[in-house]
Amino acid sequence: MTDDLGARAAEMLAEAAAISEAGSGVTRLPFTGEHRRANDLVAGWMREAGLEVRRDAAGTLIGRRLGTSPGAGTFLMGSHQDSVRGGGAYDGIMGVLLPILALERLGDVALPFDVEVLAFADEEGVRFPTALIGPRALAGTIDLSVLDMQDRSGIHLREALSGFGDPDALGSIARDPSTVLGFLETHIEQGPLLEAEDHPVGIVTAIAGIERHAVRIVGRAAHAGTTPMGLRQDALCAAAELVTGVERICRETPEAVGTIGHLDIAPNVVNAVPAEASATVELRSSDDDVRTNVRVQVEALAREAAERRGCTLAMERTYQQPARACDPGLRRELERAVTAAGLTPFSLMSGATHDASAMADLCPVAMLFVRCREGISHHPDEFAAPEDMGQAIDVLYHFLRARAGVGATA
Amino acid sequence: MTDDLGARAAEMLAEAAAISEAGSGVTRLPFTGEHRRANDLVAGWMREAGLEVRRDAAGTLIGRRLGTSPGAGTFLMGSHQDSVRGGGAYDGIMGVLLPILALERLGDVALPFDVEVLAFADEEGVRFPTALIGPRALAGTIDLSVLDMQDRSGIHLREALSGFGDPDALGSIARDPSTVLGFLETHIEQGPLLEAEDHPVGIVTAIAGIERHAVRIVGRAAHAGTTPMGLRQDALCAAAELVTGVERICRETPEAVGTIGHLDIAPNVVNAVPAEASATVELRSSDDDVRTNVRVQVEALAREAAERRGCTLAMERTYQQPARACDPGLRRELERAVTAAGLTPFSLMSGATHDASAMADLCPVAMLFVRCREGISHHPDEFAAPEDMGQAIDVLYHFLRARAGVGATA
Repeated sequence: MTDDLGARAAEMLAEAAAISEAGSGVTRLPFTGEHRRANDLVAGWMREAGLEVRRDAAGTLIGRRLGTSPGAGTFLMGSHQDSVRGGGAYDGIMGVLLPILALERLGDVALPFDVEVLAFADEEGVRFPTALIGPRALAGTIDLSVLDMQDRSGIHLREALSGFGDPDALGSIARDPSTVLGFLETHIEQGPLLEAEDHPVGIVTAIAGIERHAVRIVGRAAHAGTTPMGLRQDALCAAAELVTGVERICRETPEAVGTIGHLDIAPNVVNAVPAEASATVELRSSDDDVRTNVRVQVEALAREAAERRGCTLAMERTYQQPARACDPGLRRELERAVTAAGLTPFSLMSGATHDASAMADLCPVAMLFVRCREGISHHPDEFAAPEDMGQAIDVLYHFLRARAGVGATA
Repeated sequence: MTDDLGARAAEMLAEAAAISEAGSGVTRLPFTGEHRRANDLVAGWMREAGLEVRRDAAGTLIGRRLGTSPGAGTFLMGSHQDSVRGGGAYDGIMGVLLPILALERLGDVALPFDVEVLAFADEEGVRFPTALIGPRALAGTIDLSVLDMQDRSGIHLREALSGFGDPDALGSIARDPSTVLGFLETHIEQGPLLEAEDHPVGIVTAIAGIERHAVRIVGRAAHAGTTPMGLRQDALCAAAELVTGVERICRETPEAVGTIGHLDIAPNVVNAVPAEASATVELRSSDDDVRTNVRVQVEALAREAAERRGCTLAMERTYQQPARACDPGLRRELERAVTAAGLTPFSLMSGATHDASAMADLCPVAMLFVRCREGISHHPDEFAAPEDMGQAIDVLYHFLRARAGVGATA
């Protein structure tokens, strides 16, 4: 049963992946012809699973299954339909299809509460310089000025959205939190940890907070032959100590990662001591206090490394986003569902941002990660095994059964 | 006296610096109108100092003072007349003028040997992709195929040289080593050590050998949020360990310097673990064995840093030039002359290459460095104080007196 559903998920994902702009991989941007065709395809699958289909003002495709107890509230599941340019077949859309198959498998099992499967229009933020319109509208946190943003062709978001939703109603579709039981997002891990630890699925502890800094170290250019080591003000040496320091501190800190992804030096020639280094520092952690602590250590280390070499250091925060903890109750329910599916619960943080980040403003959220091959995502080689997707469907099935108070079955 | 001569040197250098292409700083390339005017100016000063002036086949301006003992051989002094583009007023030409002033000061003091002051045409290698034609011709190491090289305007070196020397005779002006007593080059330090140690002049131990390597480290690009520290193959982290390792090893190694002057990484974006790093490693030492030992340590460290992170390392030598030791006998004579001038002898290596490197194929060589401000050279701000140049002239004066067997005088 589990393997059959996994294989069906793979077939459905292949069918969805074919709905793409031309070129390598999957390119399905929001509010486009591809988006419309994908919605039509998914809506058909929703209906086959017995769901009632509609679209909301934000262009979110919604498949609804009514519960047996009116007023019991709604449990939300889903993810996004869009991809990056040249992306893969799993990121986002898989988290729409697996809940549909879980609901299909539930069949006539009575759920007291309503369930809605959501296919958000835009999570990747590729077409417009914004993202998460769907979940933000539901959470009532949407900034309506984004409607004035334009894509590369000069089309405003307002105009693009109007073919799918209702820009004028975007500010009035916020859900009443008292009616929403929670949001569970299923997503490929986009990282290598489940594969390395040999788990088909993982339970997310939190969506990491992120901070980014621009670091500029200024020393003094000098002749590489005539300047003794002790009289140098080598900006690259100071930056290199920052790089290895970030690596060391984050290795020593569970649930934190840190990256120097960008580094440029000047004058950048073989026979000159580097005078300037510009770098970015990105820190992520599931715990904002941990992240703050890492940053304090990194900044002290960078300052010391620069000063010891007679260089100046400027470090400026350019971005910050707090961590979003997954709901402890939902995590426990997921753990029980994983166990009911015959697996060993394994928890990990999400280093990437997801629709669930925005949904956390509305209700308790949880995330189920599915193992993906070599951690590859946002690339045509993105892949999750059918067996793993089958396991994930099984977990969702047991999750909903348990939530409905129905005993586990094989 | 010393200060007077230093002031005169400064005036002469200012006059020479005015002979330049238009633009910031001094631009005086070989075999140009500026070169001709500079030769005319210097030739006048040579004659005022009692020297007999000629040019050799390589376009080297030569001022000769005959000794009192025929067959006693010739002692050579001098440096180059040319500059880089937008360079300073001291690099090269100062080493031509100070010996002229030292000889002028010697006046009628009898020197048994001949002395020649040489103003080589081209040391910087800016106009043609070669350099050191003058000293190589004297040493008999000239590669005549350089005559076919072209400058940016398509003018061949053969043609450019023919207005100053004799391309056809270039291969036949090698001096008989048995007639050459030595070569002493005076030059600004082009580094900050004399200033830092508060010495007006320094005695060069050796002209450093140089080796350069291209290093390429390849890891794996990964998402900066979703890839745990322990599962990364971060090429920049490996490169950073190389950078700090080169710094540490060279700090611990007297008479060696090492520089990572060039570093590029890819993909070089804030949220991706760097997949590739390309760097240059340059090592210099006055002792080739020391340099080899440093390289062995650096390569082992780089390999270990890459392998520990699952990265590959390729390190390829792109350039090598052996060290040229200064003659121990001439160094001792310089030490005595420095002492006679009332100064404390201070020795240092030359990290840069000089005419003396090529002259070492002909005869024993020595170099006297003159303190320059903040180690700046190849820049309009290049500066040596008149007092320091006066001290250098005094050292040359005492050097020649002692060599002639004439007692020191105040």
